[in-house]
Amino acid sequence: MNALKIGIAGLGTVGIGVVKIISQHSDLLEKRCGRKIEICAINAKSRKKDRGIDLSPYHWVNDCKDFVNIDELDVVVELIGGSEGVAKELVKESLLKGKHVVTANKALMAHHGVELAAIAEERGVSLRYEAAVAGGIPVIKAIDEGFAANDINAVYGILNGTCNYILTEMRETGRDFSDVLKDAQNLGYAEADPTFDVEGVDAAHKLAILSGLSFGVKPDFEKLSISGISSVTSDDIKFAGELGYKIKLLGITRCSDKGIEQSVEPCLVPKNSAIASVEGVFNAVYVDGDFVDKGLLVGRGAGEGPTASSVVADIIDIARGFNKPTFGVPIKSLKDALWVNGDDIIACNYLRFVVIDQSGVIADVAAILKKYDISVESFIQRGRDPGQPVSIVMTTHEAKQGDLKKAVKEISQIKEVKETPHVIRIEHL
Amino acid sequence: MNALKIGIAGLGTVGIGVVKIISQHSDLLEKRCGRKIEICAINAKSRKKDRGIDLSPYHWVNDCKDFVNIDELDVVVELIGGSEGVAKELVKESLLKGKHVVTANKALMAHHGVELAAIAEERGVSLRYEAAVAGGIPVIKAIDEGFAANDINAVYGILNGTCNYILTEMRETGRDFSDVLKDAQNLGYAEADPTFDVEGVDAAHKLAILSGLSFGVKPDFEKLSISGISSVTSDDIKFAGELGYKIKLLGITRCSDKGIEQSVEPCLVPKNSAIASVEGVFNAVYVDGDFVDKGLLVGRGAGEGPTASSVVADIIDIARGFNKPTFGVPIKSLKDALWVNGDDIIACNYLRFVVIDQSGVIADVAAILKKYDISVESFIQRGRDPGQPVSIVMTTHEAKQGDLKKAVKEISQIKEVKETPHVIRIEHL
Repeated sequence: MNALKIGIAGLGTVGIGVVKIISQHSDLLEKRCGRKIEICAINAKSRKKDRGIDLSPYHWVNDCKDFVNIDELDVVVELIGGSEGVAKELVKESLLKGKHVVTANKALMAHHGVELAAIAEERGVSLRYEAAVAGGIPVIKAIDEGFAANDINAVYGILNGTCNYILTEMRETGRDFSDVLKDAQNLGYAEADPTFDVEGVDAAHKLAILSGLSFGVKPDFEKLSISGISSVTSDDIKFAGELGYKIKLLGITRCSDKGIEQSVEPCLVPKNSAIASVEGVFNAVYVDGDFVDKGLLVGRGAGEGPTASSVVADIIDIARGFNKPTFGVPIKSLKDALWVNGDDIIACNYLRFVVIDQSGVIADVAAILKKYDISVESFIQRGRDPGQPVSIVMTTHEAKQGDLKKAVKEISQIKEVKETPHVIRIEHL
Repeated sequence: MNALKIGIAGLGTVGIGVVKIISQHSDLLEKRCGRKIEICAINAKSRKKDRGIDLSPYHWVNDCKDFVNIDELDVVVELIGGSEGVAKELVKESLLKGKHVVTANKALMAHHGVELAAIAEERGVSLRYEAAVAGGIPVIKAIDEGFAANDINAVYGILNGTCNYILTEMRETGRDFSDVLKDAQNLGYAEADPTFDVEGVDAAHKLAILSGLSFGVKPDFEKLSISGISSVTSDDIKFAGELGYKIKLLGITRCSDKGIEQSVEPCLVPKNSAIASVEGVFNAVYVDGDFVDKGLLVGRGAGEGPTASSVVADIIDIARGFNKPTFGVPIKSLKDALWVNGDDIIACNYLRFVVIDQSGVIADVAAILKKYDISVESFIQRGRDPGQPVSIVMTTHEAKQGDLKKAVKEISQIKEVKETPHVIRIEHL
């Protein structure tokens, strides 16, 4: 069989990883695919930059737009990034020219996945994005193929290694968010501008893709409620620990009669749960299907090797002739989802109020919770310090998040309540 | 596109699960596959048995051998079990007739996988067995496709839910093996004759398949060293806990310059590792690849829904037209492995000796270990009871298992050493 010919646009960490795998494992890949995989074109912003490997054997193309005019190219690998501009144009034009596309671009797939999938389908080519979600973990394949016999009920994910690293460090060392973030930046685990990661946007791009794929609906990033980890304090982590929980930034998407809910937010998960054991930069995806029950996949969510491993896995599938719809079902079957409003989500919660330690405050707090039909499951106040601010911590039974918001707002107006109340969802995974 | 027509031989738990999925999810499967999946023939030992669902819509075939003569049948689903006899014959004849085969039969694949794969390849059909290893966990797909860009270094698995349930219960309740086994039998987690499960044979069948697939070699069940969990005592579990470990029955296969080692044996794994958090009847597979680094997959390893989920996943792949070699590479590329002898495996170990508490015994034990170049990493003796038998527990640094065996044999001959010494491998996953 003819070699599969690929062009790589973008030679950052992941692009270089892809070149390494394809050159180092050329025999192995040929055996596994029944044909050779050949790199026929490469492109990046700067040709001169030292990338630590010899790129001279490969045909350098000055403008990646020209990839679409190279007739022999079967697959365009887009590793440029960004939801708009060059990346989008390259993917779109490549598909239009009948070339398969493999991308690691979560923002692109979350914002324009449906439009691009329609083109791929119309041209009969593959649009693959395993590396866009959870790096080296083959989660797209697991949901779309391994668990394809199931109606998926829910997917939960630790989808951002930066956040998981920071939360792990905060718990293990007792240090504050900003302090640990600086360390993460020095170690290269966080960007100079960490907003996309720590405020949950990166995880939300990935979750939007998982929602679409799991439930056969059009991904809709705009319908996601997102909160990051910058408001999580070392006190919250300590109290969560006392209550038997760890705090993780979770992407959650669930399907019920009421529709599909999707959110990214810090959550308390039971300490002894498998997902709680996922620490540091590792990612995890937990899938709940109607026949398979629970499945958990854990691995590295970023980095040269793991992400390139997923890019090449997609290329291998194409080389083997596997073609399937981008979001698991044909575009005409992809539904417009009914999205559940964030306020209608039902969940248990952890609440922490900083209050002036004097009699009557707790009764006032309790009365407001009762008014909104929120029942308290446990309560902690450590130590007494009359007249001074102290933390009181509660966990609640299931309540509508909208009701909880109202109650918390009302509580925050009590004179003795200092600081904005801390509210973190609890998930019993 | 034409419907994919399947015949199911064997209507036990898994077979019934497959019927349920295909009937309940018929629309979903049609969307995902682009074609219908139809059950065109069913067969089991007894037609009369009440299986809790209405089988009258399906064409009953009295002898599954006749499946091969039903021309319209595309896929034969073998859920009879057993490495020889009817199951083997059905699979072989079906492949010879150019029908795809999906099986959940680990014993068959471990013993005759290569022979059957050769027929499948020659006839250009698929032989699929996702359900044979780790039930609902899509581990065959993960290794063969998701991680296909990697040279696999090692695979570790909790591959038997019965054993994992028993070990978990023993740890949580402090009870003995035989006591917990009885409970497991009453709960239906263990067979009336539990030998296959508790002595590690079932896990070994699965591991033999994983070895072959991961390293591109012919699976060879005979080259596996197997020990089960019946010799693990509640004392071992308690001491392991004190040292920061849990005991799990692990299937281990690793590839190095010296060849491939494969074994099934109880192992100590660090308490806070992700694999240690896999409890009860859950299974897990841990994969170490050269680019992806570490990946862990967790889920239910048995039961109607999970196992049927994997069987149907294989059917979906066939319906989608995905074909690939049975063990990841064509038969001609499948190597005869160089297997590492169990005695040449290098590992850390936990040792427990029951000795008469008197001076000089520990020195004698230590002298023998030193003679065989085995260095002690930690040592515990709880309490003193002069003249009475007490446990002394040690962990060792890495040593050749053959040397360790010799040392332990010599130690067991010391007059003050009572009971057979307890030796359990340690894996730092």
